[in-house]
Amino acid sequence: MSVIPRIGIDAMGGDLGPSVVAAGTVLAFREMPGRFSVTLVGDEAEIRPALRRAGAAGMDIEVVHAAGQVDMGEKAAAAARRRGSTSIGVMTQLHKEGKVDAVFSAGNTGAVVATALLGLGRLESVSRPALAVFMPSPAGGTVVLDVGANAECKPSYLLQFAHMGAVYAQYLLGRDTPRVGLLSIGEEETKGNELVFEAGDLLRRAKHLNFIGNVEGRDVFNGSADVIVTDGFTGNVLLKTAESVAGLLVDVMRKEIKQDPLAVFGTLFMRGAMRRMRVTLDAEEHGAAPLLGVNGVCFIGHGSSGPRAFRSAIRTITSFVENRVNEHIREEIQSDHETAA
Amino acid sequence: MSVIPRIGIDAMGGDLGPSVVAAGTVLAFREMPGRFSVTLVGDEAEIRPALRRAGAAGMDIEVVHAAGQVDMGEKAAAAARRRGSTSIGVMTQLHKEGKVDAVFSAGNTGAVVATALLGLGRLESVSRPALAVFMPSPAGGTVVLDVGANAECKPSYLLQFAHMGAVYAQYLLGRDTPRVGLLSIGEEETKGNELVFEAGDLLRRAKHLNFIGNVEGRDVFNGSADVIVTDGFTGNVLLKTAESVAGLLVDVMRKEIKQDPLAVFGTLFMRGAMRRMRVTLDAEEHGAAPLLGVNGVCFIGHGSSGPRAFRSAIRTITSFVENRVNEHIREEIQSDHETAA
Repeated sequence: MSVIPRIGIDAMGGDLGPSVVAAGTVLAFREMPGRFSVTLVGDEAEIRPALRRAGAAGMDIEVVHAAGQVDMGEKAAAAARRRGSTSIGVMTQLHKEGKVDAVFSAGNTGAVVATALLGLGRLESVSRPALAVFMPSPAGGTVVLDVGANAECKPSYLLQFAHMGAVYAQYLLGRDTPRVGLLSIGEEETKGNELVFEAGDLLRRAKHLNFIGNVEGRDVFNGSADVIVTDGFTGNVLLKTAESVAGLLVDVMRKEIKQDPLAVFGTLFMRGAMRRMRVTLDAEEHGAAPLLGVNGVCFIGHGSSGPRAFRSAIRTITSFVENRVNEHIREEIQSDHETAA
Repeated sequence: MSVIPRIGIDAMGGDLGPSVVAAGTVLAFREMPGRFSVTLVGDEAEIRPALRRAGAAGMDIEVVHAAGQVDMGEKAAAAARRRGSTSIGVMTQLHKEGKVDAVFSAGNTGAVVATALLGLGRLESVSRPALAVFMPSPAGGTVVLDVGANAECKPSYLLQFAHMGAVYAQYLLGRDTPRVGLLSIGEEETKGNELVFEAGDLLRRAKHLNFIGNVEGRDVFNGSADVIVTDGFTGNVLLKTAESVAGLLVDVMRKEIKQDPLAVFGTLFMRGAMRRMRVTLDAEEHGAAPLLGVNGVCFIGHGSSGPRAFRSAIRTITSFVENRVNEHIREEIQSDHETAA
C-alpha cells in the first residue's frame, strides 16, 4: 500500500451502538495516528453526535449514511437480501468498489459472513472462506478455524483452512513456521471421525505446512499448536463453550463474593492481580476475527465489544492490510495446488 | 433388588492409585452404611495395605486380584484384547457373571468403554451406548451425551441418546419431563449440519420426549436444557474444552495471586466464597459418567479423581441400581420403537 488503509466500520454493529464504535475509533486514532483512516457506515444522525462526544474532531473519519441495520437475531440469508440498504451491506459495497480497504462489524456474525460472501466473493483458489478466532491463553494463544462459516466441511476445506490459518499466525502473530493441529478426540491418527481421517491424510501430505498431527479440545489453551483447524460446526461449539465457561466462572465468583462482606473486603487487595489476569485472557484485547479467504478484508467482532475491542480490531485490521495477508494466502494455496498437481 | 448393590471398582484406575480408591470407598461407607457393598479389583498386595490405612476394617469390601492394569495412554483396542488379565477386564467379567451389580473405573476411558462393550454388550433395542456427563452449573446442571463413545453417529443414535439421557435426568437428577435439546450452532432449525437436520426431524416426531429444539454450546451452562444430545466427536470436544477453560482460569488466577503479596493477603478473606463456589461447580461432587445403553451398569470417572470423587461415584451408582435406570431405558426405547412402527 502506498497510502494508509481506510477501514470501513459498521457503526450500527454491536450491542452498544454508535457511541461505543466512535469511542473505540478515537482510542485507535490516539494510539496509532497516521497509520489508518476510517469510514463509519450507518445512521448519520446518530453517528455525528457520537463522534463529537468522543472527541473525534480533526481525525480522518468519513461518515457514509445507511438507513437500515441488521438485528442481532435476524437470519443471515434475510439480512443478505436486504444488503442494499443495511449498514453491513453498504459497508461491504464500499469495499467492493475500492472505497475502503477493509471492513469491520461487531454485528450479526451470520449476516456479515453471508453479505461478504455474496458481495466480495472468494479469493482465487479458495474453496470456502473460514472464520478464524484467536483464543488467548497464558501459553501465547491459538488461532482456531473454522468457527462457524461452514457447518458442513469436506476434507479439502480443512487443508485450505490450515494454509490460511498458518499465514495468519505467521504475519499477524509473528509465529515462524506455525504449528498446525487438526482438532480430534485423541492424538492417535486412529481416533476421530471420517472427516478427521481424510483431512489428516491431506494435511500429512501437504508440503508447505508444519502439521503436528491431531490435537484435542484442551490443546486450544495449552500452547501445543499455533493453529487448530476444524469444521465450522465443531469450531462454533468449541468457541461458544469456551466463552460460556469463562463467563460462568466469573459470574459465580462475583455472586459468591458479593454475598460475603469479608470476601468483598478481600477483593480490595486483589485488583492488581485481576487486572493482569484480564490483560492475558480478555477477548477485548484480541477483538476481531477475520473471515479468511474472502476476496477482501473482512473482520467480525463480538456483539458485546467495548471501545477497547474496537481499538484492538482497528489495530489488527491495519496490520492485516499492511502485511498483505491476502496475497500470502493466495500464494500459499496456489503453491499447494501446484505441489499436489 | 432384594439385596444391596455390590459395586465393582477398578482399584488401579485413576492417577493416584489404590490408596485414593480405598480412601474414597471408606468415605462412602461412612456416609451411606448398609446401602451398598464393594469389590475392589487389582493388585491385592497394594490394595490390602491401602484399605488398612484408610480404616476399612469391618466394612463389606471384597478384594479380587488382577495382575495387570491398563495405562492411561494405552489404546482402547489393545487394552480390550488384554481384558482377561487387567483390573478393568476382570472387573467387567465379574459384572457379566453377576458377581457385582455395577462397575466403576477412573482409569483409561477408551479402555473401559471398549471392554464394557465387548464384555457386557448392549441393552436390548439400544443401537449404540453413549457416555453421559453431568456438567454442573449454578442453573442446576445439564446431562450431555455422547461425549466420546461414538465419534461417528447416525441420526437414529441421537434419538436414542435423547431417550437414555432423559431417563437418567429423571431418575437420577429428579427432573420431571426433562427438557431435551439438540446441540447445534444456532437455535433455528435451518442452522446446523446434516446430522443435526435429520436428528432434529426424528426428535420433533418422538412422542415420549420433551424436545425443546436446537441449543448451542453456551446452553450447557445456563440451564436451558436438562439433557443435550450430540455426536461423540462434538461432545468430546465440548467436554475437553470446558474442562480446560475452567482449569486455565483457575491456574492463571493462582499464578497472578501468588506473585502479588497483597493479593495473597486478600485471599484470606475469600476462603468461604471460594469454598461455596467449589461446591457448585466442582466435578468431584458429581464424579462419575455412566455408559448408558450397555447391558450392565458401567460408570467412568476422571483420571484425577480424589477420594471425594470416588465417594460421589459410589453414591450415584448406588442410586442408579436402586432406581433400576436400565429397565426404564429399555422400556422407553421399546415404547418409542412401537410408536414409530
